[in-house]
Amino acid sequence: MTLVPAADPAAARASFRAGLAVPSSGWAPGRTQANLVVLPRDWAWDMLLFGQRNPQPVPLLDVTDAGSYRTVLAPDADLRTDLPRYRVWRDGALVDEPTDVADLWTDDLVAFLIGCSFSFETALLDAGVPVRNIEQGRNVSMYRTNRECRPAGRLSGPLVVSMRPVPGHLVATAVQVTARMPAVHGAPVHVGSPAALGIADLARPDFGDAVEFADGDVPVFWACGVTPQAALMASRPPFAITHAPGHMFVTDVPDAVYRQP
Amino acid sequence: MTLVPAADPAAARASFRAGLAVPSSGWAPGRTQANLVVLPRDWAWDMLLFGQRNPQPVPLLDVTDAGSYRTVLAPDADLRTDLPRYRVWRDGALVDEPTDVADLWTDDLVAFLIGCSFSFETALLDAGVPVRNIEQGRNVSMYRTNRECRPAGRLSGPLVVSMRPVPGHLVATAVQVTARMPAVHGAPVHVGSPAALGIADLARPDFGDAVEFADGDVPVFWACGVTPQAALMASRPPFAITHAPGHMFVTDVPDAVYRQP
Repeated sequence: MTLVPAADPAAARASFRAGLAVPSSGWAPGRTQANLVVLPRDWAWDMLLFGQRNPQPVPLLDVTDAGSYRTVLAPDADLRTDLPRYRVWRDGALVDEPTDVADLWTDDLVAFLIGCSFSFETALLDAGVPVRNIEQGRNVSMYRTNRECRPAGRLSGPLVVSMRPVPGHLVATAVQVTARMPAVHGAPVHVGSPAALGIADLARPDFGDAVEFADGDVPVFWACGVTPQAALMASRPPFAITHAPGHMFVTDVPDAVYRQP
Repeated sequence: MTLVPAADPAAARASFRAGLAVPSSGWAPGRTQANLVVLPRDWAWDMLLFGQRNPQPVPLLDVTDAGSYRTVLAPDADLRTDLPRYRVWRDGALVDEPTDVADLWTDDLVAFLIGCSFSFETALLDAGVPVRNIEQGRNVSMYRTNRECRPAGRLSGPLVVSMRPVPGHLVATAVQVTARMPAVHGAPVHVGSPAALGIADLARPDFGDAVEFADGDVPVFWACGVTPQAALMASRPPFAITHAPGHMFVTDVPDAVYRQP
């Protein structure tokens, strides 16, 4: 039997809630998917301030009240059960990858839902810009850069970028399309020179897969949602929950809501 | 001797630091001016979350580290001395309006700098949209509405709007110009019907002055920076400092930085 991804976001979440643990790409197409970071209240101030100060890598779509597992992005969802897979961290170390975190949720926890580049990849494709990592069936290439984020409390670290090869004549289109989507990382932070960002070799990404260039492709770099996770894990909070890579939270919000006119 | 407002933002701040206590309108034209709210750390989480959840009335331009009186918006400025006049609040009551708060500043305080509509009024004028309150030498009209902000912790309250009469054929221009400035309240929240917002009589604003309409003017309503101040004072924090009305913080940042392409 072939698994058919649900088109309806509530149906997608119901499948994941029932225990289905697959990457969320392709589920509820056209609906925004979000990264999840859950922290004790003591650390939530640092994270919220880090997001305020670094909106390109950390576009906060919603932040819950302490203890709440509800979000305005999908009012009937339960953040403790509705992601396909979670990661549980203690003192900065990964300790578990469960499909449900209801037994770990306490009144002290604050959840951050963060925009992700899935939304703008759809917009690029809609505008006729090829997305090489999708064509090649690979994860996008991600790199630590020589640019530091603005620190906030215990959180600091380099800007992490994702890179997509874009045909030279479509770079302007890619800039215009993504500039209109600041809630999902916005315009590129750099076009052209990996060395200017301190990236020695595009073929050796720090996260994700190497992606092949076609003739005439130019490397285009966007701020990446790995940035806050890397800063957070480096600072070793006593406890944290995140989504497992690729296993995002499916919201009810149409991608178009985050596209500016 | 006539007082000539300084064109240079550092010179403007130096005048205010020296004790000059005049409204900041007209000083350092073209540079962004900001509202100031200073709170004990215990209340800062609520305020930061209120801003994240209500970005139109609460566009946060910068948030300081606890105890710091420095901001990236003007690296050589001192937030304790460089505003022309402050207000000091205890348990929600106004207790003083000094020109300097250095003696009140403690390591427990967090400062919020919030975008203000001065920036978009300049943009409207540049685009040929008349600004009636400026023409008439009055403060803008502001009203409480029947729309509730999304609460955050102890902070809740109605959306407060500013209203400007705009000639009908220029409403589209006014929308387009301000939509490109989300850091200073962005696009209007409503055009046309005061009743739809629960406003009984435009001639009786809740804050500011009544402003006269010219023939063919339509009321246009924008989210207003009084919103967070009203929510804050209603919740009676033990201590707060704000700017005095009209006596804003002059930043180094050109208004153009907050205009999207």
